[in-house]
Amino acid sequence: MQNEINKPLILITNDDGENARGIEVLTRLMMEIGDVIVMAPDGPRSAQSNALTVSQPIRYFKTEEREGLIRYSCTGTPTDCVKLALHELERKPDLLVSGINHGSNAAINVIYSGTMGAVLEGCENGILSIGFSIFDHSPKVDFSFTEKYILSITRKMLENGLPYGVCLNVNFPVGKINGIKLSRQCEGHWAKEYEKRVDPHGRNYFWLTGYFDNHEPDAEDTDEWALANNYVSIVPTKIDMTDYEVLQTLKTTFE
Amino acid sequence: MQNEINKPLILITNDDGENARGIEVLTRLMMEIGDVIVMAPDGPRSAQSNALTVSQPIRYFKTEEREGLIRYSCTGTPTDCVKLALHELERKPDLLVSGINHGSNAAINVIYSGTMGAVLEGCENGILSIGFSIFDHSPKVDFSFTEKYILSITRKMLENGLPYGVCLNVNFPVGKINGIKLSRQCEGHWAKEYEKRVDPHGRNYFWLTGYFDNHEPDAEDTDEWALANNYVSIVPTKIDMTDYEVLQTLKTTFE
Repeated sequence: MQNEINKPLILITNDDGENARGIEVLTRLMMEIGDVIVMAPDGPRSAQSNALTVSQPIRYFKTEEREGLIRYSCTGTPTDCVKLALHELERKPDLLVSGINHGSNAAINVIYSGTMGAVLEGCENGILSIGFSIFDHSPKVDFSFTEKYILSITRKMLENGLPYGVCLNVNFPVGKINGIKLSRQCEGHWAKEYEKRVDPHGRNYFWLTGYFDNHEPDAEDTDEWALANNYVSIVPTKIDMTDYEVLQTLKTTFE
Repeated sequence: MQNEINKPLILITNDDGENARGIEVLTRLMMEIGDVIVMAPDGPRSAQSNALTVSQPIRYFKTEEREGLIRYSCTGTPTDCVKLALHELERKPDLLVSGINHGSNAAINVIYSGTMGAVLEGCENGILSIGFSIFDHSPKVDFSFTEKYILSITRKMLENGLPYGVCLNVNFPVGKINGIKLSRQCEGHWAKEYEKRVDPHGRNYFWLTGYFDNHEPDAEDTDEWALANNYVSIVPTKIDMTDYEVLQTLKTTFE
């Protein structure tokens, strides 16, 4: 893989797969800012979190090359895509963006999301990394309201940077946008998660479903609140998951 | 599923699969403390992080039932196992333990680990949750030094509890143990991650491999340091990944 110097080099991936509209929009936008390398899964990899392919090998194939853009298709997970791209690229990307995910990655969804898995991977590798998602699963969702925000957030972050170990989880509401809210990850959990069915042989099987139970619907500083009130939510997300307060408490219990 | 009241109800899972020695040891130990339900993957699911099975249904089957123990085999990921068990159990478990993982989940491994994925899932659901791992991938690793620590850590945590959203990532060194260190997640990343090979048809494929590059080998408060110095490392790990400091900084940039 070879790239021009000068312009920022931008690595793009997602978890909806290389043919999703979200990554098409994101690729078009990023080409306004820099040279773009896409390394995306060859099909949907939703809810793959930071999963890695360990017990079989992975591959990648070039699918397109034109001025300012090279696209690759990868057989792995979103996190595999980032790892493999970083292994193969001659120049370290200046920016990794993932998405635009069809579906919200606000609140606890950050830990399940393949989109954010890729972002955490970029972050671990010291690359400015941003995940973009929209609060609508539809393949036909209207991304038009998101475009100017994606460009301005990306440009500002390329200018300002982030400390090592911190990345951004950006979620868009659907339709008209009231502005940007810097938010925290809302507390909540998924409830009533399975639909039980019986197969033609009389055996049970279970489909994942359920709904998000927001533990703090009235708090106005969460990502869920921002989305519900038509703001873009930006959560600075860190890869160090240590709880330093509890660490101090437990020292007296165990040491 | 039915269980006795009175005794704590303990849910066990892992990512090495139901037949791994680590979960056999953990099950035996937990039976000294409470009534045990095992819901484990039907085969290895290493590095599955918090991955969920969304595009096909999952199933579970009872494989054993005797005094104080019911074992189920599940077709899903470790996180699926926890979700499905919580959906199917009539009584909410008092404790979730995951492991004993064959391999360390210290440092950034917490984000890839299926073992810790299950623990984060229990934590999200308001259950006291602890992951146990040992710094050795061998299926034949000697767990004997870990046993008294697993029992005492578990008993103390059942007594003291943890705040909502916090769980424990416990990692054991191999062999004789010097004691317990409350630690923070060490900063570092995986490097030189792929081995490239050529298949009989002349096409490249890539095996995940590589080594952990510790960014702070001299810091004595990290989980990596504890393991390297033969201490049990306990990292209190939280599901809220918000970086509150950066949140304040970025408000001035974006709002």
